[in-house]
Amino acid sequence: MTIRVGIVGATGYTAIELIKILLRHPEVKITRATSRSDLGQPLEKTHPSLRGQLDLKLSEFDIDDFERAVDCAFCCLPHAASSPVVKQLLERGIKTIDFSADYRLDDLASFQKHYQADHADPARFGNTAYGIPEIFRDAITNSNLVANPGCFPTTAIIPLTPLIADGLIQTTGIIVDSKTGVSGGGRTPKLNFHFPECNESVSAYAVGTHRHGPEMEQIIARGSRKRISVNFVPHLIPMERGILSTIYVEPLRDMRAADFLEVIATRYSREPFIRVTQDLPATRDVAGTNFCDITARDLNGRIAIICVIDNLIKGASGAAVQNMNVMFGWNETTALL
Amino acid sequence: MTIRVGIVGATGYTAIELIKILLRHPEVKITRATSRSDLGQPLEKTHPSLRGQLDLKLSEFDIDDFERAVDCAFCCLPHAASSPVVKQLLERGIKTIDFSADYRLDDLASFQKHYQADHADPARFGNTAYGIPEIFRDAITNSNLVANPGCFPTTAIIPLTPLIADGLIQTTGIIVDSKTGVSGGGRTPKLNFHFPECNESVSAYAVGTHRHGPEMEQIIARGSRKRISVNFVPHLIPMERGILSTIYVEPLRDMRAADFLEVIATRYSREPFIRVTQDLPATRDVAGTNFCDITARDLNGRIAIICVIDNLIKGASGAAVQNMNVMFGWNETTALL
Amino acid sequence: MTIRVGIVGATGYTAIELIKILLRHPEVKITRATSRSDLGQPLEKTHPSLRGQLDLKLSEFDIDDFERAVDCAFCCLPHAASSPVVKQLLERGIKTIDFSADYRLDDLASFQKHYQADHADPARFGNTAYGIPEIFRDAITNSNLVANPGCFPTTAIIPLTPLIADGLIQTTGIIVDSKTGVSGGGRTPKLNFHFPECNESVSAYAVGTHRHGPEMEQIIARGSRKRISVNFVPHLIPMERGILSTIYVEPLRDMRAADFLEVIATRYSREPFIRVTQDLPATRDVAGTNFCDITARDLNGRIAIICVIDNLIKGASGAAVQNMNVMFGWNETTALL
Amino acid sequence: MTIRVGIVGATGYTAIELIKILLRHPEVKITRATSRSDLGQPLEKTHPSLRGQLDLKLSEFDIDDFERAVDCAFCCLPHAASSPVVKQLLERGIKTIDFSADYRLDDLASFQKHYQADHADPARFGNTAYGIPEIFRDAITNSNLVANPGCFPTTAIIPLTPLIADGLIQTTGIIVDSKTGVSGGGRTPKLNFHFPECNESVSAYAVGTHRHGPEMEQIIARGSRKRISVNFVPHLIPMERGILSTIYVEPLRDMRAADFLEVIATRYSREPFIRVTQDLPATRDVAGTNFCDITARDLNGRIAIICVIDNLIKGASGAAVQNMNVMFGWNETTALL
Repeated sequence: MTIRVGIVGATGYTAIELIKILLRHPEVKITRATSRSDLGQPLEKTHPSLRGQLDLKLSEFDIDDFERAVDCAFCCLPHAASSPVVKQLLERGIKTIDFSADYRLDDLASFQKHYQADHADPARFGNTAYGIPEIFRDAITNSNLVANPGCFPTTAIIPLTPLIADGLIQTTGIIVDSKTGVSGGGRTPKLNFHFPECNESVSAYAVGTHRHGPEMEQIIARGSRKRISVNFVPHLIPMERGILSTIYVEPLRDMRAADFLEVIATRYSREPFIRVTQDLPATRDVAGTNFCDITARDLNGRIAIICVIDNLIKGASGAAVQNMNVMFGWNETTALL
Repeated sequence: MTIRVGIVGATGYTAIELIKILLRHPEVKITRATSRSDLGQPLEKTHPSLRGQLDLKLSEFDIDDFERAVDCAFCCLPHAASSPVVKQLLERGIKTIDFSADYRLDDLASFQKHYQADHADPARFGNTAYGIPEIFRDAITNSNLVANPGCFPTTAIIPLTPLIADGLIQTTGIIVDSKTGVSGGGRTPKLNFHFPECNESVSAYAVGTHRHGPEMEQIIARGSRKRISVNFVPHLIPMERGILSTIYVEPLRDMRAADFLEVIATRYSREPFIRVTQDLPATRDVAGTNFCDITARDLNGRIAIICVIDNLIKGASGAAVQNMNVMFGWNETTALL
Repeated sequence: MTIRVGIVGATGYTAIELIKILLRHPEVKITRATSRSDLGQPLEKTHPSLRGQLDLKLSEFDIDDFERAVDCAFCCLPHAASSPVVKQLLERGIKTIDFSADYRLDDLASFQKHYQADHADPARFGNTAYGIPEIFRDAITNSNLVANPGCFPTTAIIPLTPLIADGLIQTTGIIVDSKTGVSGGGRTPKLNFHFPECNESVSAYAVGTHRHGPEMEQIIARGSRKRISVNFVPHLIPMERGILSTIYVEPLRDMRAADFLEVIATRYSREPFIRVTQDLPATRDVAGTNFCDITARDLNGRIAIICVIDNLIKGASGAAVQNMNVMFGWNETTALL
Repeated sequence: MTIRVGIVGATGYTAIELIKILLRHPEVKITRATSRSDLGQPLEKTHPSLRGQLDLKLSEFDIDDFERAVDCAFCCLPHAASSPVVKQLLERGIKTIDFSADYRLDDLASFQKHYQADHADPARFGNTAYGIPEIFRDAITNSNLVANPGCFPTTAIIPLTPLIADGLIQTTGIIVDSKTGVSGGGRTPKLNFHFPECNESVSAYAVGTHRHGPEMEQIIARGSRKRISVNFVPHLIPMERGILSTIYVEPLRDMRAADFLEVIATRYSREPFIRVTQDLPATRDVAGTNFCDITARDLNGRIAIICVIDNLIKGASGAAVQNMNVMFGWNETTALL
């Protein structure tokens, strides 16, 4: 049995990564790819790396068409634009993985504040499975909708959830200092991401105000059943892809980095994509893969946890396929190793 | 009057930046450049950007020769190799700016521990002016020897010293999360700095163990007369030059980022190279210059201070020329604006 | 005597480089900087690297205002938008260096074809000094208007003109294969120059159709009094600045690379910015400078000439200041070494 | 049936790419990986991206051990070091793909001149299948030894062979102007490939003297049965991987770029890895893949052919696996799409 997949909003970086993974997936066939911008154009014009690999034209999103042609949808629309579409997809019985933040948070007021938008589907808000199978596999398995996680939150939620759940670290004032490649900013040309501006330069942005801060707080709370607060500072660095987060925590008991690593390693011992290591990982080690590499080091009174992912794979499209694999009961690593 | 300058160890990145600045300096003439590796070779073979600009061959270091031909020496030798040479230079009455860490610290035991070497000139150790004129101008003015500051410490010492001195922040557990370009690692080829290894990748290194941590602690203590402790984590990012440090501090009083910025701006209001700004600075803004740009942002319970420099200029050779200008009583910005 | 300088179109990369050079120039003061886009904004908001260096707001271009406040104008407007402004500047007696292609070519039909625009100032078209002083110094000296050269043409015109003039190479089918950094594409964000698109990639563009091909042909013809034809292929490579052109020529006599280099070296022996070298130059060697480095190598039946410049300096703003120095009778290297 | 694979010389970039491809290959199991430098070390220490993926230690090469444990060997040794090992492997009946140049050329004198070494296996020299299946599939199918092609030659041989074979272009003075990423220089740290040297810079090297020039000439002659001569000039550009070659040819008949593209497209119409396109391809389009994208453009009297590959995949390890697939009679695209 082959599942028919549709991609809503297929012109960006998450879409092209998703398509490349899906082309290697034995259980699926991409039947629809929608876009307003390059409507009617062969997908390989928009994504030249697909030359000769996928004979599909960009079409307009039409829910009736999707109902006929699609079993599983990946929705790659911007925040707030996504939920109206997701709502329709679910009403027609199409399993959906949503890349936007529309269904990630617990708290509607927080959503409205940080995304400055009303929500088109409040009934499902707060009840949606968050797409990190390593923590929320049960919820994902039984769900028709998964909120695919944010890239930065992934790097904080995975290492911190077990430590918070076990009461091992101070829950307030956790510092997440993240360094991200430029693809995280999307494919729309902007001065910030113009090569001569961001090459050979590093800068912080959205210091203390980035939307992924509340996402880290709410999801770690959901996974650990404890309230926490995070100081999140993202930095833009001159590379295409990859995130490294340096997380500064204060141990509550007399534990050291090695103890924390053991807790994390034990928690994720059966997870194929979590790799706990003694060495300091580089984003290069996980580039193009769905892996999440984690280590820890002792500081003077604090512990530094370091976590790297490929923001477009484990931080977006790889996680999405992993979620699909869970939702459809396939081997979770299919097309991802 | 023209001062004759000699450069000891002239093949690295700090040396080439130094030479370029000195070629624009109206008061100096470069008369010697020494190196063991490219001995006898025209300097422009080692540094092709100097083609036709400086007719000088790399010579062996000879103290008698220096005594005859050099009034002011810049010593760009590695740690521990520097002090034996500096000792000779000073004994012959040659004013010296030392790029190594040999004369920076206060505490000899700390030097021996972190640099794993004995010190060839213990008499001068601990009494040497530290080359940040914005804080230690008086000591530099009267000195024949200046310890040129480390690149990372510069980004922490400048913004933190006034805050610590005024008792405004918690003195323990200050986090300095730094991001540096690759030139900070020097010019000797190593796998870490091999283009295909470090391009498109970010990694942390020497987490909690980097030698610049103690340097920050001891020099801020010297400048503020208070003991402090720092958690220092450097990261290597894929660019040639520039350092951005994100410094996480806890305010002791009810002060906010804007207040901290005002304290810093007031302290450095007459300093031509310190630029306090409301905007988030990028390393690009200071690339190729002797500027140090600083801002601050409120977090939840903490304040983030962000400081950027060009590691090769304000973090090395620009600071060295600034120090020379102070030592010789010239306008401090000569050749630097 | 200080000359008052105005910059028309001051938000792009050539403008910021120009401003940085002019700030080091002892004979000039920048009194106006115009822009439609960031009107009224302090220049340092648009160009953060200028923080604290130049207290000037972006103003609207007003010819009466310029007549009162400006002795020399640099016009950094796009092609076709420039000539209407230049015409006014000259009518008010303001010496002008024009960065656009509007006054570069000899042949109006060729201009109209390649730039697909009518010309607002046909009377001056074809009579304007072309701003490579190394070849057209006399014309520049006596002119109120200089057409600042194109970046790619500079790399071809300088090495080829003496060889063509002396009848040493085949005049047809000269191949100019150029590699340029991304800043050559300007500061307006476009998908081609979006970091995740152009980083880690190389591509050719405008193969055989780029406007700089005819410019090379017409200006080399002007300088050598011989007709030539060029096959010009530019490539975009992932760096900010620099152009390397590899030029393939066929010798007419029994000459070799070394002979060609000697011809070029002799021709430019008194030129401070032309550096003929035996070594293979890299764009790094000339980055941030007004130098043009040239070498040659023997191939099997052909000779390869290699020429590197910084596209923003010798290929734009450095050349412009060099031209100003010539126009005003100052030392040609002022502010450029 | 699973084939046991051994990799000789497993620490470099071609080896790690090879391993990643082989891990996705359903018919093979990697049983040996040899190296002198990291002997005894787990492979994942040398290649951290392999963490948890392959439990194998680097061993010393031992021919008896290989005879017992390996059915197919990939030999990733340097030129001249390879043939003594290959000779042994073949004598023990182990099918071998050799990455070095030792078995690529036709002419032993040419090998000795360009590689400045004697040949340890002259009997097989000149009789060995050259590993571009698109041209030499029959020879590869029946062979126990395949000489894996050079990266630059691949970009010239594939588009030129059909044009030369059909007598469509001038056979002398073909210009191949190539731009390569830094990984082509190998993994041994050298100043040329030190990040601060090669980032933000482009340079030509080995102009007219690179060993891949004769390889292009001899293999195109073998494939087309016509003598040709090439002017080959490689350039190093600041990216990790990818080659773009701009090839300048003179048509013998009244043909244009479109005609040449049709000839090439027809010749390779059944080849899954050759993609002929009307668009100008970027190396990004083929990064991480075994594709070779080709287009052509009309110049004035010449035609420019543009060919892009990933130097580590189609230019090395992808081609090697494609060759193995042919040698063992498997689907040629296995593990490569």
